[in-house]
Amino acid sequence: MNERLEAQLAFALELDKEKNVFRQTHLSGHGRRENDAEHAWHMAVMSYLLREYANEEVDVARVMLMCLIHDVVEIDAGDTYAYDEEGKATQTAREEEAKKRIFSLLPDDQAAELMAVFDEFAAYETAESKFAHAMDNLQPIILNNSNDGSDWAEHGVSAKQVYGRQGKTALGSQRIFDEVIDPILQHHVEAGHIRK
Amino acid sequence: MNERLEAQLAFALELDKEKNVFRQTHLSGHGRRENDAEHAWHMAVMSYLLREYANEEVDVARVMLMCLIHDVVEIDAGDTYAYDEEGKATQTAREEEAKKRIFSLLPDDQAAELMAVFDEFAAYETAESKFAHAMDNLQPIILNNSNDGSDWAEHGVSAKQVYGRQGKTALGSQRIFDEVIDPILQHHVEAGHIRK
Repeated sequence: MNERLEAQLAFALELDKEKNVFRQTHLSGHGRRENDAEHAWHMAVMSYLLREYANEEVDVARVMLMCLIHDVVEIDAGDTYAYDEEGKATQTAREEEAKKRIFSLLPDDQAAELMAVFDEFAAYETAESKFAHAMDNLQPIILNNSNDGSDWAEHGVSAKQVYGRQGKTALGSQRIFDEVIDPILQHHVEAGHIRK
Repeated sequence: MNERLEAQLAFALELDKEKNVFRQTHLSGHGRRENDAEHAWHMAVMSYLLREYANEEVDVARVMLMCLIHDVVEIDAGDTYAYDEEGKATQTAREEEAKKRIFSLLPDDQAAELMAVFDEFAAYETAESKFAHAMDNLQPIILNNSNDGSDWAEHGVSAKQVYGRQGKTALGSQRIFDEVIDPILQHHVEAGHIRK
């Protein structure tokens, strides 16, 4: 087998480990915790189906790819819960190291390409990045909403925390924020699942 | 919330159930069984990275979408193991019913669109479908190879069965078949993990 193909397959096998990185979100039906690979898959399909709500027109293929690979670094760096302030302080450095190690398994051109997609997501500047982040924020809300907000309740999350995070969702899709996320959050604040 | 958005979100929540459909393949490192959502995610990333090996030029965004949704019907129909001849006899009918129920949760235009993508995959005629199938066949081989062929050994799979299935991989990518799959299978036949 030639070196290029060998490198691509080594990366493909490494990716498999993302299925063992578990998030704080639980599957619908009060199921088990969700892993990063499932989350990425779910977001990618949602980005395709909901692209009409993006604030700006997006290259949906790029959004899908961004959704699919945005958590690859967590193979080394682990999942950092959205409301874990201590973990978030070291998140960038841990993920930067992981990014270099993991994407460098690929041939140079593809390593550079995927690192650029990863960096674009993190930078939150392009229309594609903003919309992919909106999906990253929406997807766990849908699951958590279906489970009576139990993930928020379990972690004692406050309205200030959740609105702080979700405030940026509107940068990708004002309509998703106004018509879906805000009403869901208000409901769970009123029901006492999110602290006031 | 308007009816269209409500329908899209109902479908998005329904999709979550695909994470509970488990396949016969085990994760690398002799891990647990893999589920359909993880498998679809893995295939989609691989299709992007390996598209240069497709026999014909492919629209990679369509291949990725096809990979992401090709197993949605298994939410109702369950996973049919590639070498379960009894299950395969009823697979088409079961999946046809499931396809109608699940995709019909979407607004009509998107239901028709995704059913067409699903049907295109099943028909095995377009370049995109053939390459997506090659990824569907390659992905479990990579995992099974990393686990010393234990999935084949456990099910007593024969070389005739596995070559029968993998013969069609070459329709999507002759190079992936010749340079990756065939050498891996030969190794596992010689090692006794696949029956002669």
